[in-house]
Amino acid sequence: MSLLVTGSIGIDTVKTPFGVSKDCLGGSAVYFSMAASFFTHVRFLGAIGADCPFNLKYIFKNRRVDFTGLEVRYKSKTFRWAGSYEGPMNEAITDFVELNVLAEEPPKVPDEYKDSKFVFLANTAPILQIQLLEQLDNPRFVAADTMNLWINNNLTDLKRLLKKIDCLVLNETEARMLAGEHNLIKAAEKVLRLGPTVVVIKKGESGSIIRRADGQLFVLPAYPAIIVKDPTGAGDSFAGGFMGYLAGQNKTDFATLKKAVAYGTVVASFTISDFSLKGLTKITRRNINNRLNELRKLVKF
Amino acid sequence: MSLLVTGSIGIDTVKTPFGVSKDCLGGSAVYFSMAASFFTHVRFLGAIGADCPFNLKYIFKNRRVDFTGLEVRYKSKTFRWAGSYEGPMNEAITDFVELNVLAEEPPKVPDEYKDSKFVFLANTAPILQIQLLEQLDNPRFVAADTMNLWINNNLTDLKRLLKKIDCLVLNETEARMLAGEHNLIKAAEKVLRLGPTVVVIKKGESGSIIRRADGQLFVLPAYPAIIVKDPTGAGDSFAGGFMGYLAGQNKTDFATLKKAVAYGTVVASFTISDFSLKGLTKITRRNINNRLNELRKLVKF
Repeated sequence: MSLLVTGSIGIDTVKTPFGVSKDCLGGSAVYFSMAASFFTHVRFLGAIGADCPFNLKYIFKNRRVDFTGLEVRYKSKTFRWAGSYEGPMNEAITDFVELNVLAEEPPKVPDEYKDSKFVFLANTAPILQIQLLEQLDNPRFVAADTMNLWINNNLTDLKRLLKKIDCLVLNETEARMLAGEHNLIKAAEKVLRLGPTVVVIKKGESGSIIRRADGQLFVLPAYPAIIVKDPTGAGDSFAGGFMGYLAGQNKTDFATLKKAVAYGTVVASFTISDFSLKGLTKITRRNINNRLNELRKLVKF
Repeated sequence: MSLLVTGSIGIDTVKTPFGVSKDCLGGSAVYFSMAASFFTHVRFLGAIGADCPFNLKYIFKNRRVDFTGLEVRYKSKTFRWAGSYEGPMNEAITDFVELNVLAEEPPKVPDEYKDSKFVFLANTAPILQIQLLEQLDNPRFVAADTMNLWINNNLTDLKRLLKKIDCLVLNETEARMLAGEHNLIKAAEKVLRLGPTVVVIKKGESGSIIRRADGQLFVLPAYPAIIVKDPTGAGDSFAGGFMGYLAGQNKTDFATLKKAVAYGTVVASFTISDFSLKGLTKITRRNINNRLNELRKLVKF
């Protein structure tokens, strides 16, 4: 089943204790698509400016990503982000951000994409996420990401969005902020009362939790990665593995949701092992499957 | 197989957002013994002063805890601790501490205890842990806890201790501090190079990791507890469940170690559900087993 993603394409400069990656390819839709393409066909929706040095179609050659929805705006500039990670690399410090094309009108959904059944709305203003959703015919499973900025400043829009989606994917700080509750299980339940039937809480190196409105719960530690060079894109890759697996299976029952969280966890562990997309481009589905089996063994008692 | 524990008996005053528990029973050896007694016989070694208002033998009536090693020092006072937990209750703020009997000579190991095969040295000065260990005949599996104070101020003693024990149980902050390494898997490996063959890293609400010198690894999320009223004793109860299960099985192979970590996790989740020992005294082994099965189901995918 095809999977539509909309999000950013970025020119990133990332500094970590392991080196600097200058003007490399980044952005939520890029990490998401690369991760999801191991599992299913991906419909890519995003915009770049004339200055974009990356040939996305070439970079994604032989991967199942459709770029019909890639808009090149010749009078605009591509989104740019520069960030650094220090010490334990738990959090990115934004050194520089230039929204450019992201501050303009969002890309239009091409007719060929309107029948998409699985949809991921990467983090952006909730009003834009709603507008995008309204262009689709009859999606089956819509997931969205969000962030502290919208929780603090655009809560009304965010609450409107939450009534329209099936699944919210967010990190633990955001979950606590949105729910006004520290205990993550209770926070998940409060988020569910706002609309979605599934909430996935990412806890970074502490793993993730998935809670469904019917009370089903799954907790998974992160893959215990030893090689962590650049955490950029970990969350979007997690979402890509998660949604990619669901769309690939064309199922959203709880057993499939759990396996999808495990695939998201594993794909993210490859992303952080190298700079930019290098952690993902050097692996195959077989590497992912092997690590999934390893993770399954690691949590078994 | 009998399990020897040495640690503190405390008169605790604990304040959490859920209330105040004044002058209640606490201390590492107390929490440990209550937790371990669900699984095996426990030999208790500790000292109290004349002021101790608790009749331990009565409180532990019908539990498998031997108090031959309880010293009542009529000229001394019992260890006292007052602490508070705020908001997310991640960390105790010590409001008041009076070492009293803990600042004196440690209790002597009774002859009847000298053949103990499983031993837990709760957190205290590493030199005292070594002295205690030297009084034992031929223990099979010795685990110890430690804390930042000793890592910072008594590292030479601590390193001597590490060469004499089989297993170190510590929290993630302490592991990072001792190893000088943020990545917990690498930190565990560095700790193993200091002596023990097994290291257990407790990550609070993020679960735990167990790493063995032969490369075996197990990661487990915490039980997703909704009721958390008082985190005091969680770590000692974890250790009690862990060591209690090992001693009860009289085994230390990796499959048993993994199950022991799971039991420790489950027992700790009961401890934090109420003040002082109330979370543990109101349950049975059947409750523990049920929750273990629930945890096993929660991590399965």
